[in-house]
This record gives sequence, C-alpha cells and structure tokens, in this order.
Amino acid sequence: MEVPKGFLFSGLNCGIKRYRKDLGIAYSTSDCVASGVFTTNVAKAAPILYNLKLLEENSTKIRAVVVNSKIANSCTGQQGLENAYRTAQKAAQVLHVDPSSILLASTGIIGLQLPMDKIEAGIEAASMCLNEDPTPFAEAITTTDTFIKMSSRKVEIDGKRVHILGIAKGSGMIHPNMATVLSFLFTDANISPDALKKALKASVEKSYNMIDVDGDTSTNDMVLALANGQAGNERIEEDSPEFLKFFESFHEINVELAKMIVKDGEGATKLIEVRVVHAPDELSARRIARSIVSSNLVKTAIHAQDPNWGRIVAAAGCSGVNFDLAKLDLYIGNGKNTITVLKCGDPCELNEEEASSVLSASEIVLTVDLNEGVDSATAWGCDLSEEYIKKNGRYKAWAKTL
Amino acid sequence: MEVPKGFLFSGLNCGIKRYRKDLGIAYSTSDCVASGVFTTNVAKAAPILYNLKLLEENSTKIRAVVVNSKIANSCTGQQGLENAYRTAQKAAQVLHVDPSSILLASTGIIGLQLPMDKIEAGIEAASMCLNEDPTPFAEAITTTDTFIKMSSRKVEIDGKRVHILGIAKGSGMIHPNMATVLSFLFTDANISPDALKKALKASVEKSYNMIDVDGDTSTNDMVLALANGQAGNERIEEDSPEFLKFFESFHEINVELAKMIVKDGEGATKLIEVRVVHAPDELSARRIARSIVSSNLVKTAIHAQDPNWGRIVAAAGCSGVNFDLAKLDLYIGNGKNTITVLKCGDPCELNEEEASSVLSASEIVLTVDLNEGVDSATAWGCDLSEEYIKKNGRYKAWAKTL
Repeated sequence: MEVPKGFLFSGLNCGIKRYRKDLGIAYSTSDCVASGVFTTNVAKAAPILYNLKLLEENSTKIRAVVVNSKIANSCTGQQGLENAYRTAQKAAQVLHVDPSSILLASTGIIGLQLPMDKIEAGIEAASMCLNEDPTPFAEAITTTDTFIKMSSRKVEIDGKRVHILGIAKGSGMIHPNMATVLSFLFTDANISPDALKKALKASVEKSYNMIDVDGDTSTNDMVLALANGQAGNERIEEDSPEFLKFFESFHEINVELAKMIVKDGEGATKLIEVRVVHAPDELSARRIARSIVSSNLVKTAIHAQDPNWGRIVAAAGCSGVNFDLAKLDLYIGNGKNTITVLKCGDPCELNEEEASSVLSASEIVLTVDLNEGVDSATAWGCDLSEEYIKKNGRYKAWAKTL
Repeated sequence: MEVPKGFLFSGLNCGIKRYRKDLGIAYSTSDCVASGVFTTNVAKAAPILYNLKLLEENSTKIRAVVVNSKIANSCTGQQGLENAYRTAQKAAQVLHVDPSSILLASTGIIGLQLPMDKIEAGIEAASMCLNEDPTPFAEAITTTDTFIKMSSRKVEIDGKRVHILGIAKGSGMIHPNMATVLSFLFTDANISPDALKKALKASVEKSYNMIDVDGDTSTNDMVLALANGQAGNERIEEDSPEFLKFFESFHEINVELAKMIVKDGEGATKLIEVRVVHAPDELSARRIARSIVSSNLVKTAIHAQDPNWGRIVAAAGCSGVNFDLAKLDLYIGNGKNTITVLKCGDPCELNEEEASSVLSASEIVLTVDLNEGVDSATAWGCDLSEEYIKKNGRYKAWAKTL
C-alpha cells in the first residue's frame, strides 16, 4: 500500500461488536481539503446529516474521520444526532483539534442508538495507537464484508511523488442510486477544494454509482476524499494539466474498490460486468447498464449459469430508455470466449453447451450494442444466490455473533 | 364462478409443453368492446405489438383471445410478428370471424420462435371444444403458477344481472412498473368503449401496478377487458351512475387477482401488504409503498421473520419521494396484533419476541404513516426465499420438463 504522507490510522474493538474491530480513526497531521458524496436516501443517518452540515461550513480544515461499524446511527432521531456531536467532541478532545475538523461515518443496523460510553472509551484508546498502517482501520469499518478493501496509487506530479489511498467497505444494501456504502480516499496531493470535488463527483458517477448488489440504497452511504497537500506539489486546479493525471489514478482506485465491493456482495459467486456500447448518449448507456445489472432475474440466471438471455433484453427494455430492438446486438462472454445471442433483434442459434461454458467463468461480461451512437457505459454487479437470502434473513442474528 | 353470458372457453395441450395445457381460446358469441393495458417495456413481445396495432383500428368488434404459454414470442424479430399474424389468421378461419377481431397473448421463454404447426393444429382442436367452463383456459395460460387464478362478480345494473369474470396468471417477472403478467376480464355488461377503458386504466393502476414479486418488468404483460353487452343493460357511459357500480365489482376482481399473483410469486411464502397513509398526495403514497414492497432486503427480512425495520425506512427513503423522517410512524402487523417500531422518527423499544410473533403470520401488513396529508396507497408483494433463486436459476431446465 502506498500510504500518503501525514496520514495515521487506527482501528480496534471498543465493544459494539463482541470480538471484531468496530471503531476506526483516520487522522491527518495537517489540515485537509475535503469533499464528500452522500446517499440520496431521504432517510439520512445522523453521521450523514452531521457531515453535510459540517462540510458546508468547513471543507478546507478537516483533520480526521471517525468511523464505527455494527450500528448505523440511522433512524435514531434527535438522540442520534446528539450522539454524533458527542462522538466528534470526544475525538476533537483527544486528538487536540477543533470539533469542526472531525468527519463521521457509521454502518450497520438501523434503529439502534450508539453505546456512547463504549464509543468514547474507544476513541480515547484509538487516538493512542495511531500509526501508518491502514489495515486496522480497514478492518474496523467492515460489517458483512468477507475481505478488507484497499487500493492505492503513486503518481508523479511536478516531480513530486503523490500518493492516493482508498479504503472501502461493502457488502449489502448496495445500489447505484447514489454514492455507495463507505469509501474513504486519502491523498497527500496539494489540490484545490474545487478540483477535489470535481474529481470525486466525476469518479463516483462512473464507479460506485455503477455497481449493484441488491438494489437497495442505504441510509448511510458516503464517499469522502481528504487531501492534506503534504506531497508538496504545486496546487492542482480544475483546469491544470496535472488534474487529469491525478484523476486517472484517483479514478482507478475507485473503480477497483467498487469492483471489490461487488465481488464481496452478500452471497456473490460471480462478478457481472455489463457494457452498453454505441448508445445515443452516455446517460442512456448508464441507465441500461444499471437496469441489467440490477435485475434479480438476470442475477439468478447467471448464478445458475443459465443462458436465459431474454431476461437481459427485458431488463434493458424496462430501464426507461427508448431504443430500437431491431438494431440490438447482445453478446455474452469476453474476448475469444464470446457468444452472440441476438443480432439486429433476431435471436441467434444458441449452442447451449457453449453458452453454459461461457457462463461458468467467475467473471461474466454482457455486452449490449445499441448500434445507435458513439457513447458507452459499464456497470458491475454480482449474481443472486441462496446464500444472499440466508445471510440477509439472519442479518440481526448474525450481527449479534460478531 | 359467475361466467358472463356468451363467452366460451377452451384450453388444451398442443405440444409446446410436454404434458400440461399450453393453448387457450376465449371466445364471445357476439362482438365485444375491448380495452387493453400493455407492458411499458421497450422490448415489447410480438403479441403486444400485434394487439396495440389491432386495438387502434378496432376496439368494438373483438371476438376472441388466443393465448399460448411456455414460449413468449418475444425478441423474435420479424419472424415472431409473422407468427403472430398467422396465429390470428388461423383462429379467424376456424372460428369463422374476421382476423381483425382476434387478440393474442403469449407467456414463457423469451427468444424462441413459436412452433407454428403445433399452434395451428392446437387452435383447430381448441375451437372444437369451446364451452362455458373457463378452467381449462385458466390452466392453459399458466407457466410457473402453482394454482389457477380466477375471480368473478355478479352485479345488478338496470335490473339486469351483469357478470364479470377475471382470469390471470403470474408468477415471475412481476413488477409494478406497468400492467402485469396476463390478466383477462370478460363481462356481459353493455358498456361504452370509453367507459371500459376508463375502468380498466383506473383499476390497473391500483391493482396490478401495485404488486411486486421480483422487480422485473416482462416484455409480454397485458391486461385485456372484453365486454359483449349480452346482459342487456342500458349502456354504461363514463359519467352514468351505474359506472361506479360496475367499477366497484370490476376493481374488486382485479385486486383479488393481483393478490393471488403475489401469493403465488415464485418461491413466495408470505404476502406483504404495505399501506402508506397520511401522504401529501396519492402518487407519493404509491411510490413509497411500491419502493418498500420491491425491496430485496425488506423481502428477505420478512421471509426470515426478522424485525429489521430499518430496511423498511431505508426503502421508503429511496423511493424518490421527499418526506420528513421526524414525522414518520411505522407499524408492523394488523389490528390487535400490531407493534409500533418508529414514532415521529424515533425508534421504539422493541420486544423482539413479540415482533417475531407478529412476523410469523402468513400475511404481513406494514403501515407507514407520513403524518403529512390525507392521501394513501396500498401495495402488495411477497417475501424473497431461497426457493425463488432455485426456481429462477433453473427456469429453462424447468420449462423443458413441462
């Protein structure tokens, strides 16, 4: 991992979960420019409301992010908001920074209040074990995740080495309707608030907003980007040539994390990549790609390695985008291992054995060619398995065992 | 069953399925006023395209509906449309009526062409066994349905006995985005085309369009209403006082059929009824109700009898409707057996045993009170079980065994 200069991390168990880490702090030794993308869910969790308000007033002097898992602090009313403030107060006190420099995140069960005594003791302990290893932080933010999700890049800007590190968690309630579950981007780049905001917004649209596990949009989703400038490069502005260089690495990390989240979708056994090409415009391409990747029937067919491609066309057809079925081509597979199932709206002779073989891969690519324009989009999802039902049906029971 | 005067039915196996009935004809001895509501899916199946065109030119002289199951005649290109025309031609020939008086419907696997020799021989045979029992027709239109779906009413209008009979099939690819799978309403009422259209549209909006099994919208969905006027009542117009009387029974049938479809959802073990009350307007109420009833996470939680009510609030929150979480009340259960889980946005103390007991019922009512206005809406769905995944993953293999 390429850890950016001046960032320290810690993660530990403060007693919300029984054994596993449940509280993490990411801390910068100097002020950060910060930007966030938050859930579009009307029922926003307390930490979301807290961050939205804070970033409106201060997006250039952020010092830390405090995250807890297992309890989402969502649908917790006034008490939940007060607990968010208390969390920030406590972190500010032990980190010797201003409360207005603390961002918050929570993930887990909705409707429960945070155990503030445990949170406060945990923050105190976590502040004492901050170091350069981001792994305990990455562990502390997980819930049903089966592996931790980190990605990093190093990029040279003005002869300075700039580092970007992304840390995310999945793995249920994931839908492309907004940000995503939790993802944090830390960089030592010197970048203007507007440029960071632009990079974050553009990247989220084509990464986290293009993935789907189960069509549900969480009340707690957020992606935060913090830049402390310690790489010492000349400040990256929206229109500076270095912006694209920074963006490229920044976006690669987000796509990588987004795909990790999907691969670790609850009960997932396959990664599904949907490419919509030759669309009249990008928005239409994205809507069709997302509609296909979100379809339960497509997900279950692919889980069963059933070449029931009619479901793909049906899902495209109910995306809300108008297209000409008589121009539609549909391919299943990737590279040499590809079969054509529909050509100009006419079904092709299907070798079911060949199709099953293509579908036995762990990563399935579906390509929809609209033959109408030059724009394209890609979305990622996972299959829907019996395991998903089992896991989600027992979510609360499961959470108790942690 | 109250079978309307002048309607005859038949259903048989013509060899598309191996053993079960796969072809049905509903025939009226005199011309019918007809109205239809069709899928909003862009990828419309051949019979949908055929009916849309036909009803534009003739909605007052309809004589029959020909339905086949197992093959959807969808994504079948020009050949599929030609097969639809041939089907209608054959039916017209053996029934001695005009081809323009025949409506069509298909349901089943997408992407396969109809076996026209079997269809044509089947139509010939079916025309010879038409009678007043609608059961064989109801059987012939089913696919993964585990029971046939019929409902009827008798209503007195102008001293005349008017009969309405509804026959429907489910049970996968059901989503509130449009009509629904297949549903046919037959009545001997004398009713104007405009009045029938108004009744059908209004009723579909609050019945089939408010149900969800798996969030997918089929390429073949349609609801057709045929009225042959043989009851001999004075013609019902849009503004006549009898309209409401007719509508009441007509709508009751549609709600009953819609609920049957949901109860028979693939793998369903529970009926979920979502009531949204005190909404600022009806559209908002409907969107919230549909969002909740379509949520995989809500469906899996209810399947597992897990009182994880946060998922209900989250689903309401991502419906696209803005509401004030601080005013929200949420109840689970019905009548005396009801628990309050959220009051004015604050979580209530939850007795988990009591909650599990409420959730052990086979019909679960969720009531969302927005405390904002006077409008309301109800949606129906089913839970999501391991069986759904199994059934859908093996859909094609299953279809072969029929």
